[in-house]
Amino acid sequence: MRATVMYEAGDVRVENVPDARLIEPTDALVCVTRAAICGSDLWPYNTLEHIDAGRRMGHEFIGVVEDVGADVRTVKAGQIVVSPFLWSDGTCVFCKEGLQSSCLHGGRYGADDVDGGQGEAVRVPQADGTLVVLPVERDDAVMPSLLTLSDVMGTGHHAAVAARVGPGKTVAIVGDGAVGLCGVIAARRLGAEQVVLLGRHPDRIALAREFGATDVVSERGEEAVERVRELTDGLGAHSVLECVGLEQSTLTALHAARAGGAVGRVGLPQEDSVPDAIATFFENVTIGGGPAPVRAYIEELLPDVLDGRIEPGRVFDRVTDLDGVPDGYRAMNERKAIKVMVEL
Amino acid sequence: MRATVMYEAGDVRVENVPDARLIEPTDALVCVTRAAICGSDLWPYNTLEHIDAGRRMGHEFIGVVEDVGADVRTVKAGQIVVSPFLWSDGTCVFCKEGLQSSCLHGGRYGADDVDGGQGEAVRVPQADGTLVVLPVERDDAVMPSLLTLSDVMGTGHHAAVAARVGPGKTVAIVGDGAVGLCGVIAARRLGAEQVVLLGRHPDRIALAREFGATDVVSERGEEAVERVRELTDGLGAHSVLECVGLEQSTLTALHAARAGGAVGRVGLPQEDSVPDAIATFFENVTIGGGPAPVRAYIEELLPDVLDGRIEPGRVFDRVTDLDGVPDGYRAMNERKAIKVMVEL
Repeated sequence: MRATVMYEAGDVRVENVPDARLIEPTDALVCVTRAAICGSDLWPYNTLEHIDAGRRMGHEFIGVVEDVGADVRTVKAGQIVVSPFLWSDGTCVFCKEGLQSSCLHGGRYGADDVDGGQGEAVRVPQADGTLVVLPVERDDAVMPSLLTLSDVMGTGHHAAVAARVGPGKTVAIVGDGAVGLCGVIAARRLGAEQVVLLGRHPDRIALAREFGATDVVSERGEEAVERVRELTDGLGAHSVLECVGLEQSTLTALHAARAGGAVGRVGLPQEDSVPDAIATFFENVTIGGGPAPVRAYIEELLPDVLDGRIEPGRVFDRVTDLDGVPDGYRAMNERKAIKVMVEL
Repeated sequence: MRATVMYEAGDVRVENVPDARLIEPTDALVCVTRAAICGSDLWPYNTLEHIDAGRRMGHEFIGVVEDVGADVRTVKAGQIVVSPFLWSDGTCVFCKEGLQSSCLHGGRYGADDVDGGQGEAVRVPQADGTLVVLPVERDDAVMPSLLTLSDVMGTGHHAAVAARVGPGKTVAIVGDGAVGLCGVIAARRLGAEQVVLLGRHPDRIALAREFGATDVVSERGEEAVERVRELTDGLGAHSVLECVGLEQSTLTALHAARAGGAVGRVGLPQEDSVPDAIATFFENVTIGGGPAPVRAYIEELLPDVLDGRIEPGRVFDRVTDLDGVPDGYRAMNERKAIKVMVEL
């Protein structure tokens, strides 16, 4: 079969790989119909050192179940399914608590014997715990939004939950990528009164406003913090969503938070310490977040997607086939596309 | 009047200072009957550089109201009152939210024209917002426990709240000082099932067990983390109370937390960054806390103190008069006393 392989920074190829196949009795074999390129795929795209064998890419996909192992109970051949960006057993203590991203027997795609999502098919381990059956046909108009449930919409929602967004709250969102934009949707959905997006790209800003952002701040650093404070009676935001992961964006997020507020971080941290520990201490600012337990959120968000109450699929502003994946990486890396959907 | 003044590290004196007096119409003048030496007083006791004018010390006290300004409505002469360790107006947006430690018009004792608590009398600004009238006589047996409501009991409670302690949770407490011991009381009061105290002092450990600690870990650093994990099915604690503030204790707290758990930090941070940002991200560990809004907690905790359901006053293992305050600092600094109460 054909799949996406990254050999080093900037070197992404679509090439022949061994066919995906069932290995464990708890596996499902899924033929991918839609996949996506993730903002987090751009970290290795910019920094990966050469790997002779390459790295299989992709962790966001929807597909048709082709076959299942003998122990699989909840999924069967022919069903349309969405996968969270991590697989999980659904039965361990963390899965039962809704923190499937810490599943004791889970893992990630594109590692060991598990395929990546940017390819023709994927062996999905722990299929019963991982996959969610979608009550739609394979080319339903809502498919792009359903695809975001595999990662970005759930991740934006997680940032909002970690930042304790609720009715009447003021929210600031650092980062206008697909996750930040989904954070706007999530914040409004959870009842936020004011949603300030920090971003500079006109196309993203326009979409953020359609998603419900009430204000946009295009300054950076301390100037951006100053603007957020001006917009929030001088106090800062109750809830700040950190959707980038750089040291500068983290500082901006921490400083934009109001005393007693919370920062939800979902941008992969590029530094191993959280700055400004003393200031955040004196302000009682809470710092939470991490990899989103997307599996838990799919069930919460699915009805809103199916009913069209939220349309996170609008973050996809470019569609390609599998051969176009390398171009898709380039476009996202050059900020010429917000997010790329792959149709197979 | 006589009051405690610190001139530099190790140099604490009780000496004559100008009498406390009303300045603003919102002030109360309180004659101190009980005060305490705080673990946080030991930071300057070990590090303060010489100040010619000295620094007035103390921020935990109970006293009798001697006089009030023209605008004070809720407090009157003759009443017994307890003060939180910060004064606050009770009317600003943060006070109304219960975050009086961020009061827009509040401040601390021993600064500017506001007296310290370790003296004969204190001018209390914003008396209506700050002081809580106590329904007891001045030498009631419960007085030591009431005095802890000014700081350590509320601070231990804040750590527990920030660490999201609740019924059935597993809790680890880093630090066996007075705050950590009050954290044991707070954790049990909030329903924790297992409370693991990390500490090494036999007297403190014994008290912690009486307060309800189920386990004690006397190892340090990663060995301590390993022991906490062994005691919690290999997972770590749902809630960790960081009651020290050093880099090492912070690392221990972060590592002792279970995935999806929370660390409540109330130890004054001695470093300006929170370490291990990447590991805590991948584990979805939340970091919260800061100076406790003790004013909010006094009303919550007072009934339990008055009824004897909690006895935080037992952390006082030494009592002195005002002249004995310098010896009290020395005893606490040498770990010969957990916490010193001053009777006037």
